[in-house]
Amino acid sequence: MPKLRVTIWNEFVHEKKNATVKSIYPDGIHAVIAEGLKELGADEFEITIATLDMPEHGLTEEVLASTDVLIWWGHCAHGQVEDVIVDRVQARVLQGMGFIVLHSGHFAKPFKRLMGTSCALKWREAGEKERLWVCNPGHPIAAGIEDGVIELDQTEMYGEPFGIPAPDEQVFISWFEGGEVFRSGNCWIRGNGKIFYFRPGHETYPIYHNTTIRRVIYNAVKWAAPQGWWEGVMKAPNVPADKAPEPIKAKGKSIHEAGQEGFH
Amino acid sequence: MPKLRVTIWNEFVHEKKNATVKSIYPDGIHAVIAEGLKELGADEFEITIATLDMPEHGLTEEVLASTDVLIWWGHCAHGQVEDVIVDRVQARVLQGMGFIVLHSGHFAKPFKRLMGTSCALKWREAGEKERLWVCNPGHPIAAGIEDGVIELDQTEMYGEPFGIPAPDEQVFISWFEGGEVFRSGNCWIRGNGKIFYFRPGHETYPIYHNTTIRRVIYNAVKWAAPQGWWEGVMKAPNVPADKAPEPIKAKGKSIHEAGQEGFH
Amino acid sequence: MPKLRVTIWNEFVHEKKNATVKSIYPDGIHAVIAEGLKELGADEFEITIATLDMPEHGLTEEVLASTDVLIWWGHCAHGQVEDVIVDRVQARVLQGMGFIVLHSGHFAKPFKRLMGTSCALKWREAGEKERLWVCNPGHPIAAGIEDGVIELDQTEMYGEPFGIPAPDEQVFISWFEGGEVFRSGNCWIRGNGKIFYFRPGHETYPIYHNTTIRRVIYNAVKWAAPQGWWEGVMKAPNVPADKAPEPIKAKGKSIHEAGQEGFH
Amino acid sequence: MPKLRVTIWNEFVHEKKNATVKSIYPDGIHAVIAEGLKELGADEFEITIATLDMPEHGLTEEVLASTDVLIWWGHCAHGQVEDVIVDRVQARVLQGMGFIVLHSGHFAKPFKRLMGTSCALKWREAGEKERLWVCNPGHPIAAGIEDGVIELDQTEMYGEPFGIPAPDEQVFISWFEGGEVFRSGNCWIRGNGKIFYFRPGHETYPIYHNTTIRRVIYNAVKWAAPQGWWEGVMKAPNVPADKAPEPIKAKGKSIHEAGQEGFH
Repeated sequence: MPKLRVTIWNEFVHEKKNATVKSIYPDGIHAVIAEGLKELGADEFEITIATLDMPEHGLTEEVLASTDVLIWWGHCAHGQVEDVIVDRVQARVLQGMGFIVLHSGHFAKPFKRLMGTSCALKWREAGEKERLWVCNPGHPIAAGIEDGVIELDQTEMYGEPFGIPAPDEQVFISWFEGGEVFRSGNCWIRGNGKIFYFRPGHETYPIYHNTTIRRVIYNAVKWAAPQGWWEGVMKAPNVPADKAPEPIKAKGKSIHEAGQEGFH
Repeated sequence: MPKLRVTIWNEFVHEKKNATVKSIYPDGIHAVIAEGLKELGADEFEITIATLDMPEHGLTEEVLASTDVLIWWGHCAHGQVEDVIVDRVQARVLQGMGFIVLHSGHFAKPFKRLMGTSCALKWREAGEKERLWVCNPGHPIAAGIEDGVIELDQTEMYGEPFGIPAPDEQVFISWFEGGEVFRSGNCWIRGNGKIFYFRPGHETYPIYHNTTIRRVIYNAVKWAAPQGWWEGVMKAPNVPADKAPEPIKAKGKSIHEAGQEGFH
Repeated sequence: MPKLRVTIWNEFVHEKKNATVKSIYPDGIHAVIAEGLKELGADEFEITIATLDMPEHGLTEEVLASTDVLIWWGHCAHGQVEDVIVDRVQARVLQGMGFIVLHSGHFAKPFKRLMGTSCALKWREAGEKERLWVCNPGHPIAAGIEDGVIELDQTEMYGEPFGIPAPDEQVFISWFEGGEVFRSGNCWIRGNGKIFYFRPGHETYPIYHNTTIRRVIYNAVKWAAPQGWWEGVMKAPNVPADKAPEPIKAKGKSIHEAGQEGFH
Repeated sequence: MPKLRVTIWNEFVHEKKNATVKSIYPDGIHAVIAEGLKELGADEFEITIATLDMPEHGLTEEVLASTDVLIWWGHCAHGQVEDVIVDRVQARVLQGMGFIVLHSGHFAKPFKRLMGTSCALKWREAGEKERLWVCNPGHPIAAGIEDGVIELDQTEMYGEPFGIPAPDEQVFISWFEGGEVFRSGNCWIRGNGKIFYFRPGHETYPIYHNTTIRRVIYNAVKWAAPQGWWEGVMKAPNVPADKAPEPIKAKGKSIHEAGQEGFH
């Protein structure tokens, strides 16, 4: 079986500037996520790293054209992601690429683009306990989670209202020590792309070193693997009258000249 | 009962440049849509017209703040709509404003923004017959349609695949003389806004003079009337540790200084 | 404006048998729910009471034919509800009747029928604290709830996984003192009927005396008010070949004799 | 890779009674569907046949427990399917079994049970032309369909309104020579089961001998293959107060005795 081609995108900013983050993720959050995938699926993945400071943020046409699943981490530098890259990621997801968005990526440009909504939420950074409940123990993303729950000792709180379109499937909902709740594992299909938002992951806590969190990301990558591709997803082709499936005779006046492109 | 405040947006370009369009819509497509609403609901609506060439395309903060339902017509000038206006329309829809998108508006920037998908389709301009079938005769948008079908003698064809997220409700599907089909009446909720895409309406055919098409737009405006508003929909508020619903003691390190804004 | 015709169905069993329940709901849970509706909308509703022990459980063809919104309370006697009544409620919801299902009604036959899923959940009866978070402050069902949250001192816990189809809209999610979470306010459309499941309501706690809970039920009844009806929703009509919209010539062999009914 | 275990259920009535059907499907529709699967995936499937006249309709606990995907054909004998078998099929789908429902199976008891709606439609038996349009060319169920369309010379017409919950994904929409349209390929997830309704298949036309129709069924079976199972999907377990994740002290009165089962 060919390997699944996974690209991990990280803005890679806090790990270089903040001592706490650096101590937990000295080589970047992406390195620890990659480590988790290799640990669970040694021969299953071909992993590429892309970061904000690379040319085209590391997400060139070539890189995306050979990516099956894209994992996204961003936080303080969302605004620095170029719109042309956002267009490219969106098109690739609609064609069929899986897209896993982590934690503060709720405000990442490509996620907001694909959702169409505010993606806003409430938050509190107090290192409180979180419990992620499995809403469907048979869901492939929840495979291997014991007792239907993940407990994390120290997390940033994200609370409802979460400004998303209704998820196609609800995999996790979080309970927080401070009293809030949050839709923490949400699935959508857009075009042919499977999208999974997964909440855990603040950069001052060692979340991506956690075995069960790694298992969920591993599961999600496999769930999001493309089942089909449609290269032409962004095109709006004209069907000339003489190519109509049923014979018709053109009537009436036109806006377009014969053979003219549609308006975009 | 207070009147429903409807704003009709029209790029208003073809009506000034193309003789055929001018002959059918001498005062603009918006004028004929407005006429249709007044005909069916004389005292029900307070109608505002906004066009591309007005300052801020006629969609100032003030205009949107007093709009309950926005109707959108655009075609050849989609690209000229400023992104800041798109942001504003999106935010207002998420707050609760109804949004009715007509025909070639499938490629309008605010519609694409709210859908997150390609919004692409196939098309043919041959003046063929179209039959719009009602998928749910009890739906308020289909009220008053006889025999569950609308027949139009001359239309532009739009064909599947139509690049949209799965609709929450399917109100119409079209049959075309040339052999294609299309999801022609689609409902979505995004945030608090009700969105309705309605296919009929090419500018070289007198579609908006048609009594039944006017009835559908009238129905759709009433269906899309806001049932609630949430002004703060785009905000991501911090809840300080000492304001948590359950008493907690902050633990661990932070990315944010106390009282700092989140990253957007 | 004509009054909204609300029927409140209660199995009305525990209130007669259990001293605790009797002390809180001496005239039945239905009486307290009715009281709540009258308190908030004195002139808005025409209320009918139906109980298990009435002929046809009080839900005759006549009663349902004049019901706009049906509220359902049941718990220990789900199994005693006749299937013919379930068929009738289902058909009426699909035609357009609103349907509000409370608490233990998650296992009521008409709710399970309309959902098609297990409707199962976890539970614990320990009188713990519950906090219902509003997922969309602009939703009409959440109108008038202060600070986006409802706090209840003593409740039965319901926990995920909750075996429902993905809700069209998520209005509430609950946090429980004992550590669980639950999708507590869920909207679906089936046919033309709006369905709302609302979790609070154990019979040994005075939940339906709570002002905010009453407000939510009041809001839900108004949200679920029919926007359209389709009497023929259960019918599968034949369209004879000579009544086809496009002229066709019948070809091939048939299973049905001309004019024969379809198979059900 | 282990073989996918496919059970094909056929009421197997018309093939024995009607000369036309017998001539097209002498060994039963199930035999031709099985033949199609073997043709395309010789070593991929382990196929079991189940028919109405077998004990428990061939769908014993054992058979279902070793079925990954169930294909359902029924028409004139829907009413003879025992409710206990319907319960069993429903539970197995919710646990994770794929479920492919063909043509007149729209009125099959297990399909109606899982949908919760009327599943009604319009119909005409006139051997007219049908064209099934692909709504998403990248969808795995549409793989291998040339030019995004399937054309069938002679079919029974099914027309909208089709009484189903909004599909999660729309794969096909049909155009009919006589002028109607229909949602012909619809996906839903219920519990862990993937459900696909596929319209083509009247018994007096050789639909299941058609190469492209066979391809779609083959694709659908693979798409519906279980990605996870949850045996306990129908259970509603109690969590005793002393097993709560957070320590709580039970307060208030109870309906249930300690250790008592919940009400179903």
